[in-house]
Amino acid sequence: MPITEDTPRRWTERRDEKFRRLLAAKSWLKGKCLPAERIVDALEVLITSGDKVVLEGNNQKQASFLSESLAKVSSNRINRLHMLISSISRPEHLDLFEKGIASKLDFSYAGPQSLRIAQLIEDGVIELGAIHTYLELYGRLFVDLTPNVVLVAADKADMEGNLYTGPNTEETPTIIEAAAFSGGIVIVQVNELVDKLPRVDIPASWVDVVVQAEKPYQLEALFTRDPRQITEVQILMAMMAIRGVYEKHQVQSLNHGIGFNTSAIELLLPTYGERLGLKGKICKHWTLNPHPTLIPAIESGWVERVHCFGGEVGMEKYVAARPDIFFTGPDGSLRSNRMICQVAGLYGVDMFIGSTLQMDRDANSSTVTAGRLAGFGGAPNMGSDPRGRRHATPAWLDLITQQSPTVRGRKLVVQMVETFQKGGQPAFVDSLDAIEVGKQGNLPIAPVMIYGDDVTHVITEEGIAYLYKTQNMEERRMALGAIAGMTPLGREHDRSLNDRLRQDGLIALPEDLQIRRSDAKRSLLAAKSIEDLIDWSGGLYDPPEKFRTW
Amino acid sequence: MPITEDTPRRWTERRDEKFRRLLAAKSWLKGKCLPAERIVDALEVLITSGDKVVLEGNNQKQASFLSESLAKVSSNRINRLHMLISSISRPEHLDLFEKGIASKLDFSYAGPQSLRIAQLIEDGVIELGAIHTYLELYGRLFVDLTPNVVLVAADKADMEGNLYTGPNTEETPTIIEAAAFSGGIVIVQVNELVDKLPRVDIPASWVDVVVQAEKPYQLEALFTRDPRQITEVQILMAMMAIRGVYEKHQVQSLNHGIGFNTSAIELLLPTYGERLGLKGKICKHWTLNPHPTLIPAIESGWVERVHCFGGEVGMEKYVAARPDIFFTGPDGSLRSNRMICQVAGLYGVDMFIGSTLQMDRDANSSTVTAGRLAGFGGAPNMGSDPRGRRHATPAWLDLITQQSPTVRGRKLVVQMVETFQKGGQPAFVDSLDAIEVGKQGNLPIAPVMIYGDDVTHVITEEGIAYLYKTQNMEERRMALGAIAGMTPLGREHDRSLNDRLRQDGLIALPEDLQIRRSDAKRSLLAAKSIEDLIDWSGGLYDPPEKFRTW
Repeated sequence: MPITEDTPRRWTERRDEKFRRLLAAKSWLKGKCLPAERIVDALEVLITSGDKVVLEGNNQKQASFLSESLAKVSSNRINRLHMLISSISRPEHLDLFEKGIASKLDFSYAGPQSLRIAQLIEDGVIELGAIHTYLELYGRLFVDLTPNVVLVAADKADMEGNLYTGPNTEETPTIIEAAAFSGGIVIVQVNELVDKLPRVDIPASWVDVVVQAEKPYQLEALFTRDPRQITEVQILMAMMAIRGVYEKHQVQSLNHGIGFNTSAIELLLPTYGERLGLKGKICKHWTLNPHPTLIPAIESGWVERVHCFGGEVGMEKYVAARPDIFFTGPDGSLRSNRMICQVAGLYGVDMFIGSTLQMDRDANSSTVTAGRLAGFGGAPNMGSDPRGRRHATPAWLDLITQQSPTVRGRKLVVQMVETFQKGGQPAFVDSLDAIEVGKQGNLPIAPVMIYGDDVTHVITEEGIAYLYKTQNMEERRMALGAIAGMTPLGREHDRSLNDRLRQDGLIALPEDLQIRRSDAKRSLLAAKSIEDLIDWSGGLYDPPEKFRTW
Repeated sequence: MPITEDTPRRWTERRDEKFRRLLAAKSWLKGKCLPAERIVDALEVLITSGDKVVLEGNNQKQASFLSESLAKVSSNRINRLHMLISSISRPEHLDLFEKGIASKLDFSYAGPQSLRIAQLIEDGVIELGAIHTYLELYGRLFVDLTPNVVLVAADKADMEGNLYTGPNTEETPTIIEAAAFSGGIVIVQVNELVDKLPRVDIPASWVDVVVQAEKPYQLEALFTRDPRQITEVQILMAMMAIRGVYEKHQVQSLNHGIGFNTSAIELLLPTYGERLGLKGKICKHWTLNPHPTLIPAIESGWVERVHCFGGEVGMEKYVAARPDIFFTGPDGSLRSNRMICQVAGLYGVDMFIGSTLQMDRDANSSTVTAGRLAGFGGAPNMGSDPRGRRHATPAWLDLITQQSPTVRGRKLVVQMVETFQKGGQPAFVDSLDAIEVGKQGNLPIAPVMIYGDDVTHVITEEGIAYLYKTQNMEERRMALGAIAGMTPLGREHDRSLNDRLRQDGLIALPEDLQIRRSDAKRSLLAAKSIEDLIDWSGGLYDPPEKFRTW
């Protein structure tokens, strides 16, 4: 028989608490609409000390009006908040902690704030939960980090509270779902209140409060790379990647990280790639943001389809004019979705290729460097072998090195790294800075971005190490040493072994790939400037002011 | 400069084609509503030969009216369809292939149709793409398997085409998103057309055609386990799991597979678990369907929160009355979401525990057995270590066995298996049937469900093998042999090694866990029947007819 207790348990506490709080804000609300000047008052009754609060800080889109407003609440009334923020990008994200409004933080990425965040953790001002990959943090919103309140940004709302999130939908639906269906409170800042939305991205019944912000949400063009800045070393590495990885393994679906290395690859497809006869054979399906440097490859017919994590400022009109390539809505504009794109990038693609700042001799890498807690973003998710994958593609099967009836393929995880970073620091190090940062921050494990045992290929300006072919740790270190140039790791390496490593296919030098270093010229780039990208787009690409040099 | 081609490329082919097809069906449509008697005519103009078509076959919910209708189209008009079906559950799913309407299949799970599907592949009637885990198939819908048409099921629609998917939301939003934002056509069968929806789950602008089906969609109670059928062997194994895994590693968040083994665990928490003083320490956060056998644990205060892949027939009223535990909408009913729950189950939980039918000596396992291509469902996703995970929990850290500055934790993947299956077949085999099935079906790799190197623990009625602690393949096989009982694998095992294996913690026998086999009695179950579950629920649980034995 059921155990009976003296006081019967209530099962609707979250819902009752939500009603109580909304009632306290009711006098300021017209329907779901709140006047902007009441936002601080409203936050002070809609949020309670100790709450788990998601503040939408995407890679690009920031709920900037709500974050500024939250930083203005009284820390006497509201404190000990546990903040869940994908991307720590704005000063007030950390002001919350200095002002005593928040005390605990779980996050994924911290760009410009990476130095300050490390300091605040060391000083004990921030209690760090963990540094996640995006998909991991989203998952936890439905497990052990269910939010009490979410503060998000949308382009437009109608008077009922339906939302249009448009090209920058990103993670808004996921965050809202975590609160809307768990008795949490959903507060949305919008750029505009309108009578009729271009399309409905979020139904009104998922939304509690809408506030028209004083100015549009912050939006950064994070994925725009000016081709002018691509160096000939990067072009050489891009040529090696195309021949020694893409062509060799027949990579058909892929994600490119942010960075000039992969931009160079995008801009070589219509030139170098075309000459190699690879069009239609590689690089057909992409999971990535609408990179402007992908325009020439799209216009040349290389690309069948792109699914996007988020949007990119300036690419709106171009994307809208290419619905066969990009996912777009009935209104014609981009539909991005970070959760879905991360799932697609984990399970649906042959390859992840990205850059790193530091790599140790076991190929562990991290963008966390001395004193900077930059976080990881999507890299750990996409830069790992999804062991639940069961479908085969040519590239995935091509990485099989053993014979066994229960053998399986493997995702390509490729790291591009110049042997020396700007400032002359060697990229190959004895010990990742991340280990020391982890110790200082009292983290339970070191903040490694991608683990060496997940990395299948490393490309430097010296050559390619085919790590997936190595049989043991010693061979692995040898292959890495062979392409580590004049770094300490490279100088330790016994170069007399290189011929055997080349014969065994554990490394490839440019000459093994029929690449002459002297051919790696900027003239190979399909677009050499932002202006060229605009030309390629037929005038549809409209870069932000800061990329206009003319 | 841009490459110019003779004929300028069109970039709106999918959208134009969609308009063309919808125009051909226009005369039958009133707004978005189609009369049921016109469905076959409409499908014949809305679908074209060679299309990629998603047919919603969830674990539980089936778009049964649409699948029956599709099987009635003329194969002269429509053929060579590439079907994308999560769960092959209904005869007409395969009739499509026998009738020549469809030719290629990508799927995740095939329950009752597993025998026939294997035969059709062997006969060359079905060209098999791959057998996926759910999340993998969803990911591919946005990469290389973008659908032209999706056929889905919802509870209700309003006249504009807004949808209510209610407790069985499952994968409907994900499937619809893949088509609605890629110029695909979204066709929805609903049980009811109403003036006002209880809540909006899918906005009307994502939907093209709504048809009120002749009868409600098929819905199966797949996750209901009658406690009457739980055996004392299962209870013994459940006790071992609780002591030797849950308590030992402090498992706080978890997924339970479908099966009597894990139902037994659920029913022991309020009795055996309570006596061990574990309440509030383990099993707080769950990703699983609303299992009726979880009711006693919920009522006893063990469970903080459950996120669900799908619903469960009969649990609607109970779930609606427990919104602090379950994710529910503003209408009060369950919000399930298979994509989100699979992400949460991959990245957000400490442990996956499930059962299998066959296991080889390396701990590879599969539910694919001779002549049956059952597929995998969510098991490969949840039964694998997400190598992109970066947050630490006590259980995850507890599985670290090495010392290194770049060490990381590990997800618990626990397999429960009785040494002999029904019919006296040993569960431990020399070679998985899946290998032979793979060869017969010409699959590029054998359809292994969970790979041995991902399995951390195996529990039989003999004991627990702590595979994560083994240093090499030999030790791994030894630990498995020690708990393999009288199977050939167990008889080969040298029992004189067992004391050392126990001392090293590589295996635990019941006595090592202070469990007396004689204590494993049905009297330990918190509920011994469906009636008891109804009592625990205060009459809120309303089991389907077939589970009512009174």
